[in-house]
Amino acid sequence: MEIRACLFDVFGTVVDWRTSVSRDLAEFARQKGVGGIDWLEFAVEWRKLYQPAMDEVRSGRRAFTILDVLHRESLDKLIARYRIQGLAESELEHMNRVWHRLEPWPDVVEGLKRLKSRFVIAPCSNGNIALMVNLAKRAALPWDCILGAETARAYKPMPEAYLTSCRQLGLAPGSVMMVAAHNHDLKAAKAQGLNTAFVARPTEHGPGQTTDLAPDRACVDVAAKDFVELALRLVNGQGA
Amino acid sequence: MEIRACLFDVFGTVVDWRTSVSRDLAEFARQKGVGGIDWLEFAVEWRKLYQPAMDEVRSGRRAFTILDVLHRESLDKLIARYRIQGLAESELEHMNRVWHRLEPWPDVVEGLKRLKSRFVIAPCSNGNIALMVNLAKRAALPWDCILGAETARAYKPMPEAYLTSCRQLGLAPGSVMMVAAHNHDLKAAKAQGLNTAFVARPTEHGPGQTTDLAPDRACVDVAAKDFVELALRLVNGQGA
Repeated sequence: MEIRACLFDVFGTVVDWRTSVSRDLAEFARQKGVGGIDWLEFAVEWRKLYQPAMDEVRSGRRAFTILDVLHRESLDKLIARYRIQGLAESELEHMNRVWHRLEPWPDVVEGLKRLKSRFVIAPCSNGNIALMVNLAKRAALPWDCILGAETARAYKPMPEAYLTSCRQLGLAPGSVMMVAAHNHDLKAAKAQGLNTAFVARPTEHGPGQTTDLAPDRACVDVAAKDFVELALRLVNGQGA
Repeated sequence: MEIRACLFDVFGTVVDWRTSVSRDLAEFARQKGVGGIDWLEFAVEWRKLYQPAMDEVRSGRRAFTILDVLHRESLDKLIARYRIQGLAESELEHMNRVWHRLEPWPDVVEGLKRLKSRFVIAPCSNGNIALMVNLAKRAALPWDCILGAETARAYKPMPEAYLTSCRQLGLAPGSVMMVAAHNHDLKAAKAQGLNTAFVARPTEHGPGQTTDLAPDRACVDVAAKDFVELALRLVNGQGA
């Protein structure tokens, strides 16, 4: 079956959340006179609350809730834990929207432009629509549309997240390729019949990263070092 | 409140469905040897079945069903009424997908590019996601995302179609402008607190058009002759 669309994981795969969040918050804290906090650690702690928050929805214990809300609840926990005081509601909202201001890895824009010439390209992320739109607008990501958790009303790796995204494009899973830097995401997509491409992001979790350094050949169809190489493979048919 | 996003009606406002459908089907019929049909009339008859089909969903008598399916049911009725015979299932599907191949009015691409420089731009159409994506890809419409009936699971002019689109962008209705060539669409948007812009499409229904030739000042905030003029007003602040 011919590939017609590429769906992309975003946090980690398209954008460098760890560097972006920590730099943005450090600069904001400097402006606001909030001192004594390791913002790299803060970013990592925030991200640690991400999966548990979504698990409440995945398990059915909680109705579908967009990521902006989950992020804000996690932020409020960290603000208390780090004993940060004196910020106004609008400043906390600005901090929460740091996830709308993430920077892409350097190969992403060029790679997406090339892939867009041949395929429908869309995020299939756990981020909500507004987050994805604002992030794309700022970083000039040329998506054809925004798909993922909010349009599917299911968080990855639930099967519905992948299957609804394919259905909304009017395509069978076998005509769609899921692109991610995380083997567990690709394993879940593969189980639903999608094709899979692994792009390594060996510093997503910092210099000592030990996970997802290489593709899991049991669930990965194509591996590339970055989005430009992926485009050369898929659009121009170069390499194996 | 500052305008942050522009939402667009598509059929009639962005694309010339009447000319596009009739030309495409006439050429297809010629290739297939289907003769004796006035395809302009056929296009208009197909469009006449559009509102009654959506009314089944709006009324709650039918669960939300995407427009591709409603279009196909209407097509099947017309194929029987016009006694068209001998077409394979794949050929009927190709005919149905003529709504994915509509041509934009000549000012649209330039106008949207200019509007995109300042605002989030998205369709808020009754067309489904795949239809909107394929149409945009073919016509180079530079949407930031695809919103409308399928993401809202409600057909315009139901309030949810407008309100859910604003909510999915994370914006209050007062920060959003609805753009349409149809006063009834703008009246419904205005009732939900959106700003409104009227762009006249005086030949949407053919040379003898009598409706929507001018904005209804009771519900229209801005009127422009085309998308380029609208962009000059909204982006560059020219004119009243």
